[in-house]
Amino acid sequence: MAQRLVVIGGGAAGMSAASAARRVDPEREIVVLEATGHAAYGLCGIPYYLAGLVERAEALYSYPPSYFRQRRRIDLRLHAEAVELDPERRELRYREGGQDRRLAYGDLVVAAGGAPVQPALPGVTDARVVTVRTLEDAVALRALLDEGRLRTAVVVGAGYVGLEMAEALHARGVRMTVVEAAAQVMPNLDEPVAALVADEVRRHGVDLRLGVPFEGVRRDGDALVALVDGAALPADLVVLAMGVRPAADVATLAGARTGPAGALLVDEEMCTTLPSVYAAGDCIAPQHLVLGRPAYLPLGPAGNKTGRVAGTVVAGGTARFRGVVGTAVVKVFNLAVARTGLTLTEARQALGAEPVATDAVGRSCAKYYPGSEPVTVRLVHEPGGRLLGAQFVSRGEVAKRVDVVATALQAGFDVADLLHLDLSYAPPYAPVYEPVLLAAQAAIAPSAVPA
Amino acid sequence: MAQRLVVIGGGAAGMSAASAARRVDPEREIVVLEATGHAAYGLCGIPYYLAGLVERAEALYSYPPSYFRQRRRIDLRLHAEAVELDPERRELRYREGGQDRRLAYGDLVVAAGGAPVQPALPGVTDARVVTVRTLEDAVALRALLDEGRLRTAVVVGAGYVGLEMAEALHARGVRMTVVEAAAQVMPNLDEPVAALVADEVRRHGVDLRLGVPFEGVRRDGDALVALVDGAALPADLVVLAMGVRPAADVATLAGARTGPAGALLVDEEMCTTLPSVYAAGDCIAPQHLVLGRPAYLPLGPAGNKTGRVAGTVVAGGTARFRGVVGTAVVKVFNLAVARTGLTLTEARQALGAEPVATDAVGRSCAKYYPGSEPVTVRLVHEPGGRLLGAQFVSRGEVAKRVDVVATALQAGFDVADLLHLDLSYAPPYAPVYEPVLLAAQAAIAPSAVPA
Repeated sequence: MAQRLVVIGGGAAGMSAASAARRVDPEREIVVLEATGHAAYGLCGIPYYLAGLVERAEALYSYPPSYFRQRRRIDLRLHAEAVELDPERRELRYREGGQDRRLAYGDLVVAAGGAPVQPALPGVTDARVVTVRTLEDAVALRALLDEGRLRTAVVVGAGYVGLEMAEALHARGVRMTVVEAAAQVMPNLDEPVAALVADEVRRHGVDLRLGVPFEGVRRDGDALVALVDGAALPADLVVLAMGVRPAADVATLAGARTGPAGALLVDEEMCTTLPSVYAAGDCIAPQHLVLGRPAYLPLGPAGNKTGRVAGTVVAGGTARFRGVVGTAVVKVFNLAVARTGLTLTEARQALGAEPVATDAVGRSCAKYYPGSEPVTVRLVHEPGGRLLGAQFVSRGEVAKRVDVVATALQAGFDVADLLHLDLSYAPPYAPVYEPVLLAAQAAIAPSAVPA
Repeated sequence: MAQRLVVIGGGAAGMSAASAARRVDPEREIVVLEATGHAAYGLCGIPYYLAGLVERAEALYSYPPSYFRQRRRIDLRLHAEAVELDPERRELRYREGGQDRRLAYGDLVVAAGGAPVQPALPGVTDARVVTVRTLEDAVALRALLDEGRLRTAVVVGAGYVGLEMAEALHARGVRMTVVEAAAQVMPNLDEPVAALVADEVRRHGVDLRLGVPFEGVRRDGDALVALVDGAALPADLVVLAMGVRPAADVATLAGARTGPAGALLVDEEMCTTLPSVYAAGDCIAPQHLVLGRPAYLPLGPAGNKTGRVAGTVVAGGTARFRGVVGTAVVKVFNLAVARTGLTLTEARQALGAEPVATDAVGRSCAKYYPGSEPVTVRLVHEPGGRLLGAQFVSRGEVAKRVDVVATALQAGFDVADLLHLDLSYAPPYAPVYEPVLLAAQAAIAPSAVPA
C-alpha cells in the first residue's frame, strides 16, 4: 500500500504524470483522482469546440478514460475530489459519490490545475454568470449556444482566454461586449503591441471597453444585467475570464511552500517542500529562465512536460524540467499574437539593467507571393546586449517564428547573435530577411536596417 | 579614381553590397556591372512567376533600377559583363554595348552569382533546351507558356530547382517527365525523407524517373526528342536543372583561392585571397558551422547577408558573417520540405563520430483542429549527444519549424537540450508537443516517446 502512487488531477499534467510513471514502472498501483467528469483533454481546445469548429467534446480527449484504465492500467476515478492531505501519515481524504473517503499513498503528485479567478461581487453566483475552465463548463455552454438562446454576452477580462471566448461567441453570432479593468488588452504584451490586438477585436464588431471596472450583475425581472463602470449592460450571458489561480489548496493547507500567485514551488524534479509530494502543471510556479526566479505562467506545454517529469521521477526514472521562458501564442480573430521572454514592461519591472525595445515590420513571405502579410515584431533587449524577449503580431505565421526567439533565449543569446541565424527562405513561406533579423539589425545599428 | 568601388553582379548579393556601402559611405563612387538586363530581383521567385502566381516579372524586383540609380546614387550598368580582372593594376575589363571597356577600382566585390551546370551532351544548345537561372530566361519561357505552345516537357534534374520548375510547368498544364541520374530526388535529403517528396511529385501525375541518365537531345524533323537512358522522349521543351556552379571565373583566373565546387574562399569579412577583392553570394563557399569547414550552398539569405557584409566592410564599416548551417526550405506541390545542418548521409561522410538519425511524426497543430496535418521530422545527432541536423516534411508549416533547429545548431545544442525548449502552443498553430520535441524525446529515450 505504501507504494501506491496517487495523482490529484486528471488534466494534461496529471495524466502525463500517471502515464510517465506507468512507462517507467509497469507494476505500480496508480490512482488518479479527477474532480470533474472528464480527464486528459486539451483545455485550450475549448474555444474551438464552442465555436463549432470541433464537433464533439470527446474530440478534445488525448485518449478516452477507457484507454488509460485498460491499456495503461491507471485507476482513473472521475468525480473524485481531493479534500485534505496528511503528509505525515501519507494519506489523502477525498470525496467520491457523495462520500468522504481516504486513500494512503507512497507518493503523491498534485496536478490539480488552475481555477478561474472568481471576484467577490454581487450576483456572480447567478446561473448565467459562467466561467469556462472545464470541459463540463464548455459542454453546458455549448448546449445553450446550440439552442440559439444566447444573443448577447458580456465577457469580463481581455486576457487571452477572454479574447478566445469573445472570438468563439462571435463565431456563433452572439453580440458582445468585452470589458477589461486594465487600460489595454492582454496585459502580457507591451501596450503598442496590445493596441494592434484591440484594433482587430473591434474590427469584428466587438464592443471592447478598456480601463473600466466590472461591478457585478443583477437581475432585472428575468433579464440579466451586467454592471460595468456605473452602466447597466443587458446580456443573456456573462463570461468571467479574469485569470487563473493555482488550485493548490490541498497542498498549501498541508504546508507546502508557495511562490508567485500562491503557486507551489518545486525543484527541477518537481518535488514540493512536502516529503513524497510532487507537483506539476497549472498549480506550480516553475523557474523562469530569463527572470532567474519562479513565475506563474499556467500554459499547456509546461503542464504536460512537468507532469511527465514528475511521473518519471516518482517512478524511479531520470528527468528534469529546467524551466520556461514564457512562450505563448494565441489566435485573436484573424491575428496570430505571440510572445516569449519578457515584455519591455516586465523587463523594466524585473531587471536591474535598463532594457529597450526595438520594433520592426517585416513580411510573412516574399512580398510578391500571394497572401504575403506584414509581421510586426518587437525585440526586448539590453542596449546592444542580452536578448530578453520578443512579441509578434501578424495575419501570417508567427507561432513558429516566436519559437526561434524562445530557442535563442534558452541559449542565452545576445541580440547581435540573432543576426547570424541561418533561417529558412522560400518565397511561399518566408522573406529573404526574416522579420526577426530586421528587428535585430535595427537593434544593433538603427541606421543600417535594409529598406 | 582609386577609391571607386566596383561590384560585379547586380543580383541580391551585389546590390546588397552596393547598398550597404552607400549606407556607410554617402560619397563614394559605386559602379555595379550586371551582365543581364535585370538587377536586384528575387531569383527564387521565378517558379511562381512562371506558374502565373506572380503576374509581372518586375514584381520580383526588390527595387527597380531607377531606385538604385537615383535614390542610392549607384551607377548600375545593365548588360555589362566582367571579362578579366587585373588585381595588380586594380583594373577590370568588361563588355558593354558590344565594346570592350576598362574600369579602375579601389575595391572590388565579386558577386557574380551562380551559373547553371551545362552538360557536354549532344543537342543541348538547341533553342528549346533551356536553363532558368535569370529573369531573362524566365521572361522568355513565360512568353512560350502564355502562348500555349508547350504541352510536354522534360525536366532534367530533381533537385529543388528541378522540382520547383516541375510544379510551375504543371500549374500551366504542361505534361511532364522529370529525369534524375541519382536514385532519389533532392540529394540534400536523406533517402527516406526524399521518398516522401517523390511520392508527392508522382501523385500530381508527373512521370518521375530516378536513377536514369540524361543523354542529350536530338531533333526529329521539327520535333524535339530527349534521350533518357536509351529511350527517346518527345517534348516541346527540355529544362536543364542540373545544379549551379559558382560564376567565379573572373576572380579565379586572376588567382583567387577557391574551395568546394570551385567557389571563392573568403574570411568573415568577405575578403578573398586577392588584395582589395571581396566576394559574396552564390560564388563563394562560406564557413559551414556544423561541418567546421567551407561549403558551397548557394542560397538567398546567405547571398543577401554576405553581400551586405562585403559592402559594409569595403566602405569602412564593421560587419562579420560567421557562416551557415545549411538551412533551406522548398515547396514541392502541396508539401513543404525543410532541412538544416547535416543529413545522416552528409554527417556520415563528413564527421568522425558515428551519427544516427531519429524519426518521429507529429502534428502541425492540435489533432482536433481543422487542417491539422502530420509533420515528419528526422533529427540527425551523435548518439545521446551533439545535434547535427534536421529534416521536416509536411503539408502544414515546417519553414519556421526548421528554424528552431537552425537556431539550436547555431547555439551548439545537444539533442537533449531540445527537450527543454519552451515552444509556443495554441490549437490552431501547434500541438502541445511540437514534432521536434517528440523526435528529441525519442532520440534520448526511445521507449519514452509519448504515445
